[in-house]
Amino acid sequence: MNEQERAALISAMTELLGARAVLHRYEDLLAYECDGYTIHKGIPGAVLFPANTEQVAAAVGYMHRHRIPFIPRGAGTGLSGGATALNGEVVISLVRMNKLLHVDYLNRKAVVQPGYINLKLSNSISSKGYYYAPDPSSQAACTIGGNVGENAGGAHCLKYGVTTNHVLGLEMVLPTGETVRIGGVPDAPGYDLLGILTGSEGTMGIVTEITVRILKKPQAVKTVLALYDDVNDASLAVSDIIAAGIVPAALEMMDRTAIEGVESGNYPVGYPRDLGAVLIVEVDGIEAGLQHQIDQVLEVCRKHNVREVRQSVSADERARWWANRKTAFGAMGTISPDYLVQDGVIPRSTLPEVLNKVSEISRKYGLRIANVFHAGDGNLHPLILFDSRVPGQKEDAVKAGSEVLKACADAGGSITGEHGVGIEKKEDMRFILNDEEISLQLRLRDVFNADNLCNPDKVFPQPARCVEVKRFVAASKEPAAE
Amino acid sequence: MNEQERAALISAMTELLGARAVLHRYEDLLAYECDGYTIHKGIPGAVLFPANTEQVAAAVGYMHRHRIPFIPRGAGTGLSGGATALNGEVVISLVRMNKLLHVDYLNRKAVVQPGYINLKLSNSISSKGYYYAPDPSSQAACTIGGNVGENAGGAHCLKYGVTTNHVLGLEMVLPTGETVRIGGVPDAPGYDLLGILTGSEGTMGIVTEITVRILKKPQAVKTVLALYDDVNDASLAVSDIIAAGIVPAALEMMDRTAIEGVESGNYPVGYPRDLGAVLIVEVDGIEAGLQHQIDQVLEVCRKHNVREVRQSVSADERARWWANRKTAFGAMGTISPDYLVQDGVIPRSTLPEVLNKVSEISRKYGLRIANVFHAGDGNLHPLILFDSRVPGQKEDAVKAGSEVLKACADAGGSITGEHGVGIEKKEDMRFILNDEEISLQLRLRDVFNADNLCNPDKVFPQPARCVEVKRFVAASKEPAAE
Repeated sequence: MNEQERAALISAMTELLGARAVLHRYEDLLAYECDGYTIHKGIPGAVLFPANTEQVAAAVGYMHRHRIPFIPRGAGTGLSGGATALNGEVVISLVRMNKLLHVDYLNRKAVVQPGYINLKLSNSISSKGYYYAPDPSSQAACTIGGNVGENAGGAHCLKYGVTTNHVLGLEMVLPTGETVRIGGVPDAPGYDLLGILTGSEGTMGIVTEITVRILKKPQAVKTVLALYDDVNDASLAVSDIIAAGIVPAALEMMDRTAIEGVESGNYPVGYPRDLGAVLIVEVDGIEAGLQHQIDQVLEVCRKHNVREVRQSVSADERARWWANRKTAFGAMGTISPDYLVQDGVIPRSTLPEVLNKVSEISRKYGLRIANVFHAGDGNLHPLILFDSRVPGQKEDAVKAGSEVLKACADAGGSITGEHGVGIEKKEDMRFILNDEEISLQLRLRDVFNADNLCNPDKVFPQPARCVEVKRFVAASKEPAAE
Repeated sequence: MNEQERAALISAMTELLGARAVLHRYEDLLAYECDGYTIHKGIPGAVLFPANTEQVAAAVGYMHRHRIPFIPRGAGTGLSGGATALNGEVVISLVRMNKLLHVDYLNRKAVVQPGYINLKLSNSISSKGYYYAPDPSSQAACTIGGNVGENAGGAHCLKYGVTTNHVLGLEMVLPTGETVRIGGVPDAPGYDLLGILTGSEGTMGIVTEITVRILKKPQAVKTVLALYDDVNDASLAVSDIIAAGIVPAALEMMDRTAIEGVESGNYPVGYPRDLGAVLIVEVDGIEAGLQHQIDQVLEVCRKHNVREVRQSVSADERARWWANRKTAFGAMGTISPDYLVQDGVIPRSTLPEVLNKVSEISRKYGLRIANVFHAGDGNLHPLILFDSRVPGQKEDAVKAGSEVLKACADAGGSITGEHGVGIEKKEDMRFILNDEEISLQLRLRDVFNADNLCNPDKVFPQPARCVEVKRFVAASKEPAAE
């Protein structure tokens, strides 16, 4: 987009959306130079704030006709740079489309706009005894549209599944500007479009309305803290809790460095500073069966040399424990000037082995790594602590992060559990997908986003094969050397 | 495929697979003229029985090179004609690939070949305390490969989800003959290919290996039969059980005609013949909480004028109740010469309204309709009874079935819960998808199956728009009349 094209765009968008819904001055755009992933940044060409589906469709239609790349954005809490405009793309923010449109308690569903904040949904339906299950740690700020883009998880996805398990229907503006409705009926026939769009990280269009499943709140909830001297004992307890046939609502783990962070943050629980690890085990369901499950959990914890266990005695206490856990990322700021959040997944049985590798990587780079996990489903969040004022540390942190993901992939796991690929992990995709598989994925993207205008070049690296073919084609134009 | 091409195919396949693995004589092919859906039939050009992935890939590669259409087939228990060769296609049967390859109890997964029979998996891992959750009524015969193709459900998918919720990885031969591996790691990054392939009804390739989730068996199971005079009371009880926040493992319903059928079959329970409906409500989980749930269920049932309730007293009794329910389709043969199974989904709250419409349709055509449902998730199975010896009855049964699906779609539901679209419901897809949506689906199919050789022309009707465009193009070659 050259300056003339940009001026035309801003003029057209101002007419379409109103002057207050179009940011274009450098000082305004600066606030949108990144999302929650701060390693790479870029200033958007403009930021638009459409108020409804028609405005989204009109804006996208303009981009399509003028070949202008654009990026959908929710609250900007993403952790892999999915909403970052690396090459001056236009950002389309959905934060003005922030309404709860409809709740159908009888059929257990709610219809929201994409800018509606995750936690507001549970708060709005709580008095009737319902809630929305996916609960990313950023749920007080992140939007359900963003959750759909990233297929967000959360502490309770062990039992209740991630966003894709709760999306029943979508209204979506395709990268051509057409509006389509997908799903919305139970068991829609044909290929599973909802599944493919959920977690597509804004590369297939802009979601403008979302129908989600709501759940009846469990009758009762009980939470246990299990404090360990040794992180390996805690890991073994995690495996054995699952092996015992218990499906906890949540099964979280923090190691010593993570505990140091959360105890220095705004919501200290009072964990002893010399702990090796803490487990948070929550069970929910019918009141009558819960204590039995808790007793089983305690038995397993004791078998693995637990130092101390605490059972929650009130909802307040549970809320404090969760506030401590859910602010773990931010709390790292109290013990380190900078930190990089990683997000890998491993088969549960490889937890001790991968933790050892993470320690090795930490020693190799001389960077502390705090480990916060959704341990029950093998979803690790190593937080790599660094100081960007020390030359080379930021680069080392990025390298260490990539090595952690390699370790996850080598253990039979994956490079992202819930934070997406974005720009951060594009190249790390090669740990999981070969060239043919990347090509297949790109062909799927092309069905929706053939011109690669919608969140361009995110998520997937160029397949090496294509590069080779292009080189070969270029080379063959020259006379052969031999 | 002309006779010369067919002779070349049979010769090449005989060399590749061995003579015993290639059926080509008319009397042998006749056994493959249809699957469990018997309204439309067709004789395949040949039936092949590859023994491993390499043989599948080689056979498919041959088809691809010679442009020969082919159809994957499991046990042939499908109920919508997905495996039927309407136009002399070559059937590739996976029944020889019937091994359990690997069980990983620690990470709760099993790897099977596509021809492995569903129930065998649960039986094989039962002694270790595990099972495989999706349980279609045909589970003693149907294959897991076929289950993946149809995204099969079952009585217990209310609580545990359908096949797509249990598939962790696939090995697949694409319609070009290439072999790819998809998923297999927890939370594979990129677009959700597993989701799009599961339920693709054989139109995107041939699955040659499947990794599925296995679950720990629940500690305890309790089952209740609730006998009603009035089917409407039973429907209201279904809604209220869910509204009470109970998630039963299964919540099944049969109406008076269905009860007449099952009581005349091989596994009578002894239901009174004058019942209006019976509910089967099953809860499972931790022993300590179960009786409380059962008590809640009984309370709801009594509120809605239940005539009688029975609680299971032994595993044997439960097994007898389920054998009665699971053979309901077959048992209809004892009260009617022929029957057509339908499969629609409706929002739970519309159950009484849709049941009334089904009764109207029954009266309109003068055909009895027995209703067997997975009531908890709104999945209806109307069984339309007819006598194919009476001229016109078969055609009326087909029309009545389509009208039932229309009623489901009009109520905000869908035309298939778990039996697929196949050939039976291709045209009924228009009740749910418009032309643009059908085109989008076909473009997705083209990513995997660009030549439409793999289960050609199944599932999706031609979009009317394309037909119009073609007509317009054809017409415009003539000089304009006006």
